[in-house]
Amino acid sequence: MKYFIDQLQQKIEEKNSRICVGLDPHLELLPENVLAPELLNDLESNQKEIAASVLKFNQNLIDAISDMTAVVKPQMAFYEKLGVPGMDCLWQTMSYAKSKKLLILLDGKRNDIGSTAKAYAESYLEQKNIAADSITINPYLGKDGVLPFLENKEKGAFALLRTSNPSAVDLQDLKLDDGRKVYQAVGAFLQEVGSNYIGECGYSNLAAVVGATYPKELKEIRAQLKSVFFLIPGFGAQGGGAADIKAGFDKNGRGAVVNSSRGINFAYRKEEYNNFGAENYAKAARAAAEKMKNEINDVLNQ
Amino acid sequence: MKYFIDQLQQKIEEKNSRICVGLDPHLELLPENVLAPELLNDLESNQKEIAASVLKFNQNLIDAISDMTAVVKPQMAFYEKLGVPGMDCLWQTMSYAKSKKLLILLDGKRNDIGSTAKAYAESYLEQKNIAADSITINPYLGKDGVLPFLENKEKGAFALLRTSNPSAVDLQDLKLDDGRKVYQAVGAFLQEVGSNYIGECGYSNLAAVVGATYPKELKEIRAQLKSVFFLIPGFGAQGGGAADIKAGFDKNGRGAVVNSSRGINFAYRKEEYNNFGAENYAKAARAAAEKMKNEINDVLNQ
Repeated sequence: MKYFIDQLQQKIEEKNSRICVGLDPHLELLPENVLAPELLNDLESNQKEIAASVLKFNQNLIDAISDMTAVVKPQMAFYEKLGVPGMDCLWQTMSYAKSKKLLILLDGKRNDIGSTAKAYAESYLEQKNIAADSITINPYLGKDGVLPFLENKEKGAFALLRTSNPSAVDLQDLKLDDGRKVYQAVGAFLQEVGSNYIGECGYSNLAAVVGATYPKELKEIRAQLKSVFFLIPGFGAQGGGAADIKAGFDKNGRGAVVNSSRGINFAYRKEEYNNFGAENYAKAARAAAEKMKNEINDVLNQ
Repeated sequence: MKYFIDQLQQKIEEKNSRICVGLDPHLELLPENVLAPELLNDLESNQKEIAASVLKFNQNLIDAISDMTAVVKPQMAFYEKLGVPGMDCLWQTMSYAKSKKLLILLDGKRNDIGSTAKAYAESYLEQKNIAADSITINPYLGKDGVLPFLENKEKGAFALLRTSNPSAVDLQDLKLDDGRKVYQAVGAFLQEVGSNYIGECGYSNLAAVVGATYPKELKEIRAQLKSVFFLIPGFGAQGGGAADIKAGFDKNGRGAVVNSSRGINFAYRKEEYNNFGAENYAKAARAAAEKMKNEINDVLNQ
């Protein structure tokens, strides 16, 4: 029995890669040789065909980046949008990623009261044939909504702490009477709840999501939360850069992974990679993943 | 074009019923004549057969309670737990409820950054053939995570404000430097964001979830948030009673619905209704729904 967080930290070190590759099939960004654009004129009638194209896209992407990353993160919304065939595509994508020995962080931001949170954990972490290794969750319901995701120590959860979007400030920056902000209190809460789930690497199976788009907060939270592993989204398309995320790692370059979704999935659309051509989208994705991996390693070595 | 909240308020008045019937298929509570218990020994191999049983259960339930309620609330976790066949069962359950002219509140507590929140709204509120009328959401990401669910004024969203679980206090009761608690600030935030989406009935398409298990808070929030409609969960199985929820309504008995899931779905298991027998679970559910409807109307008329 190996703690989820130890599996993750080990795979990061084996691959010397601190990136997480999001699998976010924005349909309108898929290459035409994978998805015929006219299918999008009637999304509902063509769900099955579109989902098959997405699966093919994901499999090629996974083949191209599987030695560049420890973990992939499918964003559930983009699969749920394709109805039942979309969910089938999600499960098959997870199955394919597992066959390539990748860890899966399922990005669903699930949350509910205890008995229902348990049903979500069973849905995605506990299926016998295929299951994710970890899932993103929303901590607003407090401890009894978080614990069901931690029952199996081989699995992990990433709770929203500081999100990467502009409106993160609306509620997360409200000031408490003890001088802290809400997100800081959420951080302390996560560290406390997670303290019973700490692996050999010193980090907990209860990890946190902290956006790259708020580098000041990222630095401050890292200093406070010694045992909380971070998923850092917002790199690339959302505006965070390699220098911004350095502060999210500990002094040994551990304790975090940095996610990029659109920036890798659709690298072929960027000027930098357009010599590959749309048909070589997977090669472009690999080049973008390799560049990001190296940029992060370089900034950590400075 | 009729605002979601006006559709809901009108249907409540037509049926003179302020209940919402949750559709939460806890598998271990289903009657044996609907679901053979041995199928649960291997949930994954039997997903299809179990999902077919759940659909049959839901359809009978809907037939039995469709004149007793304006709205049904499927809890997504219990369908997601059955994998792809479970999602198919969810869509078919929604289709059946629509055929009975019921409004659908899909309980998924979805939440994400703006572009992804939009994908969730498209997934569940904007499909052309079958779609929910409203969805539960989690407000932790702030305004840009909420607005995508409000774009179509015929649809609505119910944001978590004060949840019904014991650990609701962990984060929702943190005290702010202006004297308010976090949940009160969330309430003010929801009222403000929702102010651009107010229907003829005076309530907004951006509604809120406020648990029956915290009657003091319910009363106080009702007084503060004049244009915010409430979904009140926690009645029955979680311990809230009719007297507790009176404070969630306005002086005209409007502005809220009270949810019960297990208490209605599995009424046949209660001593009070066990004369019906397990095979008549739908009749027991109808009796429980009628009782709850009348209890609420009575307490509002006192």
